[in-house]
Amino acid sequence: MSVTAPGGFRASGVAAGLKASGGPDVAVVVNDGPRFEAAGVFTSNRVHAAPVKWSRQVLTTGLLKAVVLNSGGANACTGPLGFQDTHATAEHTAAALGLGAIDVAVCSTGLIGERLPMDKLLPGVTDAVGKLAADGGGDAARAIMTTDTVPKTAVLRRDGITYGGMAKGAGMLAPGLATMLVVLTTDAVAASADLDAALRHACAYTFDRLDSDGCMSTNDTVLVLSSGASGVTPGLPALTQALRDLCDDLARQLLSDAEGSTKDIAITVRGAASEADAVTVGRSVARSNLVKTAFFGNDPNWGRILSAIGVTDAAFDPDAIDVAINGVPICVGGAAGADRSTVDLSARAVDVSIDLHAGTSEATIRTNDLSLAYVHENSAYST
Amino acid sequence: MSVTAPGGFRASGVAAGLKASGGPDVAVVVNDGPRFEAAGVFTSNRVHAAPVKWSRQVLTTGLLKAVVLNSGGANACTGPLGFQDTHATAEHTAAALGLGAIDVAVCSTGLIGERLPMDKLLPGVTDAVGKLAADGGGDAARAIMTTDTVPKTAVLRRDGITYGGMAKGAGMLAPGLATMLVVLTTDAVAASADLDAALRHACAYTFDRLDSDGCMSTNDTVLVLSSGASGVTPGLPALTQALRDLCDDLARQLLSDAEGSTKDIAITVRGAASEADAVTVGRSVARSNLVKTAFFGNDPNWGRILSAIGVTDAAFDPDAIDVAINGVPICVGGAAGADRSTVDLSARAVDVSIDLHAGTSEATIRTNDLSLAYVHENSAYST
Repeated sequence: MSVTAPGGFRASGVAAGLKASGGPDVAVVVNDGPRFEAAGVFTSNRVHAAPVKWSRQVLTTGLLKAVVLNSGGANACTGPLGFQDTHATAEHTAAALGLGAIDVAVCSTGLIGERLPMDKLLPGVTDAVGKLAADGGGDAARAIMTTDTVPKTAVLRRDGITYGGMAKGAGMLAPGLATMLVVLTTDAVAASADLDAALRHACAYTFDRLDSDGCMSTNDTVLVLSSGASGVTPGLPALTQALRDLCDDLARQLLSDAEGSTKDIAITVRGAASEADAVTVGRSVARSNLVKTAFFGNDPNWGRILSAIGVTDAAFDPDAIDVAINGVPICVGGAAGADRSTVDLSARAVDVSIDLHAGTSEATIRTNDLSLAYVHENSAYST
Repeated sequence: MSVTAPGGFRASGVAAGLKASGGPDVAVVVNDGPRFEAAGVFTSNRVHAAPVKWSRQVLTTGLLKAVVLNSGGANACTGPLGFQDTHATAEHTAAALGLGAIDVAVCSTGLIGERLPMDKLLPGVTDAVGKLAADGGGDAARAIMTTDTVPKTAVLRRDGITYGGMAKGAGMLAPGLATMLVVLTTDAVAASADLDAALRHACAYTFDRLDSDGCMSTNDTVLVLSSGASGVTPGLPALTQALRDLCDDLARQLLSDAEGSTKDIAITVRGAASEADAVTVGRSVARSNLVKTAFFGNDPNWGRILSAIGVTDAAFDPDAIDVAINGVPICVGGAAGADRSTVDLSARAVDVSIDLHAGTSEATIRTNDLSLAYVHENSAYST
């Protein structure tokens, strides 16, 4: 059901011919109300795509009635003409729905630097609007896939409110938003400012702590739309927790489907002087190609982990660092602890626990291994 | 000839059994004078090896009479006992040479986190001292290799002075020193302070601008020893230029032998508001796994380059960036320029030229592609 699980939403997904494969590539999500409060979080990459510029502008109203999404082209680095294409897409979608362009957010994903084939996209939007359905969430989720091998959807019911979500993203997963398009929906009654605060918090602790390959996309977008159809108004803490749980679910799905990955690695940094230090250390380890290739090879190479910690400016004494891998204290006080051979790395899930012994803060960064398949996918296909 | 090309130096390399392969793994370089001024630059990784702690301490005198180096073990993350091992190695070498331990720098390279087999290393040092020869530079260069496929040496003769050098390093090549051990020698007459200033400058523009895989080692060491045997005193500018040329030669050799690489990529950033901005942008592009895999696949994917530029805080307007790959202006004003198919990426050397149009500064960062072989080497072997 994904985005159509909450009351007040319809969605669809169709094949418009943007993808060479002929797979579905255009999705529309519509909020039928009665309310239309919304919020968005966007890539912090300064080179960002036309749809990001447009949607950020649209969201200044705090309201959103529809989202049109396409795979098969990012519409990034396409100049003023690319922006006109995004605008035309919003106009066309709005006209088909009896709305104004200002009510419609646009999301695109695919190859950077090429114009979208508008002669295919606009008829696709018309087709998608005609197919909008209260159970169309699954179709929409499939239409935004690129190198994803499975659609990612989530549904959460809590306190009389339903939350739904869909996500795409399988590579270029990085800080300050993993590459991805995410649309969240809820039938809660919520003020735009609350949705904005809740979404920012949720992203900061979930998507922002994914770091699959250290690369940040030009198109990352996370939107939340509320219909108010449930008539229930959650408190801000409850709303925040619900969006965080929903995002956490989707973030784990993104990680598990990361291009070519064979391991989901959770790096938890404890005993940090600050949460920022914990995030910095976790991210440095998550980004080390040597750490990532070691895990691909089932090698509990704690020396590479210490080396990655050592390049940060976090507070720690190198001779006080402990590292456990899958529960085995393989490095104690900055030197060899338990024998390497006692670490079992045969499962997909890997837990790395680092204690800096420099304070009481902690954070978890999630990443993948660096595999032969990652290199193959990202060298053989242009994205 | 490498380090024994200048007058006043002897060297040797022997197999002590540290490497499972049985290959040479212990080297000694001796300065017979008449002068002994020296300088060193070390890894800025806060997790650094015992030999780095020792050699940094030794260099505070500004003098050095010998260097003992081993492959087959990094002696990093080995605690106080590891430091004792380094000290014992210096003592043993000094005794065999009739020197004090304070005259002897120590360099180690290999797996992090394991103690060195001193029962093999010390007899190896004795053997190496016995084999010291005025033409032993080649043997020494071979004894410090790890995953290197070829020894790296350089010789430069200029203004009556001879400069020599050897280097090892093939992975974990990163900023603030590529992983490597480098020993430079010269028969120039030079003050320690001049050697120090010249070496720092030379490293900053050569090794510090290599970024093969973004990982900084715990053991990086660059030493320069001067014997004064030529009787010629170069001015500081000439000394600096000579060391820079020598380091540039060795840096290119390191890059060309980087683990599993199929491309040597020079990323030149022009039109930057400052040299620091140029370095930041170049490094961000050099570290992007998506850029690196694209080059492995012979794909001139300028969108990934723009995306990597966009995550920096350098001064630029995204719509003003130009990118040329091997001379083809593939991105003009932040959007598509010449056709992708006109870029020839069949050669090993790749030139990426980025113009930020934000100033007059420039810098070149050198990196490699990210290949299937890199992942294979770094997942299959523990280093």
